[in-house]
Amino acid sequence: MSELARSLDLAWVLLAAFLVMFMQAGFAMVETGFTRARNAVHTMAMNFVVYPVGVLGFWLVGYGLMMGGVHEWPTLGAAVTGGHEVGLRLGGHLWGLFGASRFALVTVASEPASLAMFLFSAVFMDTAATIPTGAMAERWKFSAFLLYAAFMSALLYPLYGNWVWGGGFLAALGANLGLGHGHVDFAGATVVHMTGGVTALAGAIVLGPRLGRFRADGTVGAMPGHNLPMAVVGSLILAFGWFGFNAGSTLSAQNPRIALIAVNTLLASSAGAVAALLYVWGLHSRPDLAMACNGLLGGLVSITGACAFVSPAAAVLIGLVAGGLVVRAVVFLERRLRVDDPVGAVAVHGVCGAWGGLAVGLFADGSYGDGWNGVAGPVRGLLFGAPSQLGAQCVGVAVNAGFVFAASYGFFRLLERVMGNRVPAEVELTGLDALEMGTDAYPRG
Amino acid sequence: MSELARSLDLAWVLLAAFLVMFMQAGFAMVETGFTRARNAVHTMAMNFVVYPVGVLGFWLVGYGLMMGGVHEWPTLGAAVTGGHEVGLRLGGHLWGLFGASRFALVTVASEPASLAMFLFSAVFMDTAATIPTGAMAERWKFSAFLLYAAFMSALLYPLYGNWVWGGGFLAALGANLGLGHGHVDFAGATVVHMTGGVTALAGAIVLGPRLGRFRADGTVGAMPGHNLPMAVVGSLILAFGWFGFNAGSTLSAQNPRIALIAVNTLLASSAGAVAALLYVWGLHSRPDLAMACNGLLGGLVSITGACAFVSPAAAVLIGLVAGGLVVRAVVFLERRLRVDDPVGAVAVHGVCGAWGGLAVGLFADGSYGDGWNGVAGPVRGLLFGAPSQLGAQCVGVAVNAGFVFAASYGFFRLLERVMGNRVPAEVELTGLDALEMGTDAYPRG
Amino acid sequence: MSELARSLDLAWVLLAAFLVMFMQAGFAMVETGFTRARNAVHTMAMNFVVYPVGVLGFWLVGYGLMMGGVHEWPTLGAAVTGGHEVGLRLGGHLWGLFGASRFALVTVASEPASLAMFLFSAVFMDTAATIPTGAMAERWKFSAFLLYAAFMSALLYPLYGNWVWGGGFLAALGANLGLGHGHVDFAGATVVHMTGGVTALAGAIVLGPRLGRFRADGTVGAMPGHNLPMAVVGSLILAFGWFGFNAGSTLSAQNPRIALIAVNTLLASSAGAVAALLYVWGLHSRPDLAMACNGLLGGLVSITGACAFVSPAAAVLIGLVAGGLVVRAVVFLERRLRVDDPVGAVAVHGVCGAWGGLAVGLFADGSYGDGWNGVAGPVRGLLFGAPSQLGAQCVGVAVNAGFVFAASYGFFRLLERVMGNRVPAEVELTGLDALEMGTDAYPRG
Repeated sequence: MSELARSLDLAWVLLAAFLVMFMQAGFAMVETGFTRARNAVHTMAMNFVVYPVGVLGFWLVGYGLMMGGVHEWPTLGAAVTGGHEVGLRLGGHLWGLFGASRFALVTVASEPASLAMFLFSAVFMDTAATIPTGAMAERWKFSAFLLYAAFMSALLYPLYGNWVWGGGFLAALGANLGLGHGHVDFAGATVVHMTGGVTALAGAIVLGPRLGRFRADGTVGAMPGHNLPMAVVGSLILAFGWFGFNAGSTLSAQNPRIALIAVNTLLASSAGAVAALLYVWGLHSRPDLAMACNGLLGGLVSITGACAFVSPAAAVLIGLVAGGLVVRAVVFLERRLRVDDPVGAVAVHGVCGAWGGLAVGLFADGSYGDGWNGVAGPVRGLLFGAPSQLGAQCVGVAVNAGFVFAASYGFFRLLERVMGNRVPAEVELTGLDALEMGTDAYPRG
Repeated sequence: MSELARSLDLAWVLLAAFLVMFMQAGFAMVETGFTRARNAVHTMAMNFVVYPVGVLGFWLVGYGLMMGGVHEWPTLGAAVTGGHEVGLRLGGHLWGLFGASRFALVTVASEPASLAMFLFSAVFMDTAATIPTGAMAERWKFSAFLLYAAFMSALLYPLYGNWVWGGGFLAALGANLGLGHGHVDFAGATVVHMTGGVTALAGAIVLGPRLGRFRADGTVGAMPGHNLPMAVVGSLILAFGWFGFNAGSTLSAQNPRIALIAVNTLLASSAGAVAALLYVWGLHSRPDLAMACNGLLGGLVSITGACAFVSPAAAVLIGLVAGGLVVRAVVFLERRLRVDDPVGAVAVHGVCGAWGGLAVGLFADGSYGDGWNGVAGPVRGLLFGAPSQLGAQCVGVAVNAGFVFAASYGFFRLLERVMGNRVPAEVELTGLDALEMGTDAYPRG
Repeated sequence: MSELARSLDLAWVLLAAFLVMFMQAGFAMVETGFTRARNAVHTMAMNFVVYPVGVLGFWLVGYGLMMGGVHEWPTLGAAVTGGHEVGLRLGGHLWGLFGASRFALVTVASEPASLAMFLFSAVFMDTAATIPTGAMAERWKFSAFLLYAAFMSALLYPLYGNWVWGGGFLAALGANLGLGHGHVDFAGATVVHMTGGVTALAGAIVLGPRLGRFRADGTVGAMPGHNLPMAVVGSLILAFGWFGFNAGSTLSAQNPRIALIAVNTLLASSAGAVAALLYVWGLHSRPDLAMACNGLLGGLVSITGACAFVSPAAAVLIGLVAGGLVVRAVVFLERRLRVDDPVGAVAVHGVCGAWGGLAVGLFADGSYGDGWNGVAGPVRGLLFGAPSQLGAQCVGVAVNAGFVFAASYGFFRLLERVMGNRVPAEVELTGLDALEMGTDAYPRG
């Protein structure tokens, strides 16, 4: 590859990473808009602080665990220093568990490919890490949140990430066991969104519902967010940044798939929004703007895994299903499971993330992915004649649900024992801003 | 052209499209900021929902009508599948009316150039479609708006768009009749903004003014928007995205004109803002921030048609005129025509869009555009010795004013008859959020 | 260099400039969020209007003064028309004072490199010009502010800018006197941020504190900003745009340093935020979100000078120091100097800008910068064995502190005499929006 081609790819990856970083503003606005004014500083603060804390944790430890086993990023045109993957040797195969190099970037400070991958990986981690703050909003002790941010960025996210993207065992399911191409996740439906959503579920369970949310008589107390326009603008910022998220995940502008990826992202998000809007309209005879936003986001999450492998028509279908799923999942979590998720993060990121992971195994049409995870031939799903890929997708989704849930649930239980996760009832009733954060979001004067 | 050059152009078009998509957030903030709190959810919802509905309508039908007649996008380096333009043969010439291929992208799902053009075209359509929601805010029934969104994205915008950019008859005025290079609109002064602004005018007329706006005694009831900072930030987002709008319209980063285009965009917007600010200051002895924002936007609209064809000094002049025009048009519409346009969309997009279309025919300096619309030689306006180009610009503007107004007026009248466009007076007086959208924008609690 | 390479670089510079322009929205939100509701229109208006006024002033005069002495931008692959630097000849050397060509872009309207540099330079100027509006908020007469905007964009910023980036005497300290590579400022720690921050200090001193800020009994009246979420979102927008600010300053995507620059920007900003958060938490046993935002911004400012010359670990260190400096400087200015800076602009941009300038002379590790300012060999700081570079950095910082302070202080004193800088007490107490701007930010109705 020519120097110029490498420069183009490097610029592409950096610009995409910038767009993904900007999603942090989108998350902050969506989550804060969907929570109450008395907790607006607290919700904003979690979304803001998770970014620098996560970056430092990922820099020190996480990146090495996640990507320390990779020997080269061919699309960035460069073999890189390091590359040591720790794993188990079973049945004659290596099953990678975590990387072990490039910690704190010490050895790779002069390698543009490694640095660009750090940046790109860090903002992806950041997306996963900020998802639980929505589900756990309005009652989470800030000090406990801070420890979570370090845990997520340095350990939990990097581990599952290594298994799929860093050469770990889920990526090897194809080469080692013949299960399709192993678990394939183009831009993070399971790696980023499902990880965030499952952690959000565990956290919301451990924290318990907000006071007054689930009443003794079985009814649910309405706790509307304080600023719907803020949440809408945040959703549009997320949709904007998501183009970088998905199209940047080629790690190369020379891959002409970037056009298809961007179009699929646009179409699936639109289908998700329209499906959720019309579905709720059918149920309640009224448009529900908040649900349309969550439908858009659900569509985005759901296409994230398959965006490079499917046709535009399939993207529309994937998005339509996601829009319906979001609505059903929000109701199911609230009414059946009685889990209190103020912003719908579990439904949007967890449920649609899982759906996005499975969608690869259903709709991948065999037009792309030759050699993915070291397996010859393109990626092909069940509807295109290859059931084994769906198997690999199911394994990846199951491992995420099992491992991420267990690890995060265990972590939150441990925190509970050591220091407590939840603010006192008096703080929650008064508002976390006044008593936990020391300031109102909107002071008079 | 080399593969690498194609990759660069593809990346450029995609990144520009992302920026244009982000303008949706800008429109949502400008329009919602300029309307009242009791209708903030409704205004946000229109700006949000027009995006996914429009995208799906454009995907299914609109793109095929608008761009289905094109045989290649040379700047994207690729002949593409399809390319059938339906038209009339008159006087030995074909006068194109609409394209007829690429519906739902079915035949072109593997063509990056077609997909990128779809993305780029879709977000442009979206800009046009969201303009009328500002002029029709605070009284429009949401179900009627939904049908409008489908109509605009699938039919109205694509038709005029085809005539100018898809090989239709306005583009052929030069080759067929010798009228300059035919109607030239670099990035959508007439195609996007005037179409949106004229539709906004028709809609505002059919809907009628907000209750209490024009009083029996001839005075105008003040109905200030509820959040001026939101509108200002929205304006800056629009100015940001507009760089993609204009500079992306080369469809190629290899065209060094992108620098001039970006500079002209910057200068015209600045001139528009300063002109409007000082003009109103002169009139009322006070700076008017809202008008400065509209001046900035008017400057942006007005340079959109000519940005590649004129010098920086001409861009400043075009913007200065636009800033004055916006102020005059807002007053004229309100005081003389008594049309109620809550956000000034008709003035900003309609009037300045027409001005931007004419400006090509005045200020194009002959430094660019050789072969445009199949006519040899550069594009040259009246002030540079070529009156016929101004003729083509006038025809394009007149056709827009006539056709778009008639079609949209007819559509809104039809809707009026079938289902009504306007919410009941009680809903309007209480606020559309409470009764039409089922939620407040800013709930307490 | 090939045509294609030039196209890539041009696209890179333009995209980076777009990102920097978007920072205007970030500044507007940070400053307005940190001020009171009754002055929100006024603060927004300053941040909005400084952009178009500054652009026109820079177009007419400033760009020619700042960059009119440059003969070529090698990274953009092109010699350019013009290039006349006016200076003093002392000791056999030319010491440049200001450029004298390219005014109003008249001679360079067909040169992409000159136009792109204008765009890139204009949005940088805009950043510097908008900084003082924060320190001078809530009491500044709008007409006086307008004259300031013209002065800053046309004269003050361009002069110091010329001395460092346009071939002026600070850049020549190395070639002429052997002081390292002369004053080196990669992306504007001193040129942009310190200039803005020092001007902010002069302005805040001349204006005096807000009424009620410093009480007779020595206490400080709390005047909390009215919208903390707005300020947080603004900070994230700034962090987003800053990637363009720093990585775009290579003026070339072919420079693989862009990856390191972006990573250093990420790390220093994160370190700044975490340092400020933990520092204040240690002092007051509570997280302080506003200070964490200022820590992030301080980290960004501080890495701006050195981002291309230092390792990621050094970037973390630079950011950590900046986070502490911001906290100390805010307290020092308020308690000791009794200067009233509503948003902390002097601490963030002035103090951290100076620190960022010095950091080049401390941490530049000799891996980059061969030939910078015409001096052979890479840039190397004190900790890497080259004390003379720190000398050049100190001179540049001292000249900024001395010249910019004197010039801006003189200008504000002149304004004071001619027209007054401050609104009447009654306007300030009622709110500038009602009496100076003629509208509330958040009208009811």
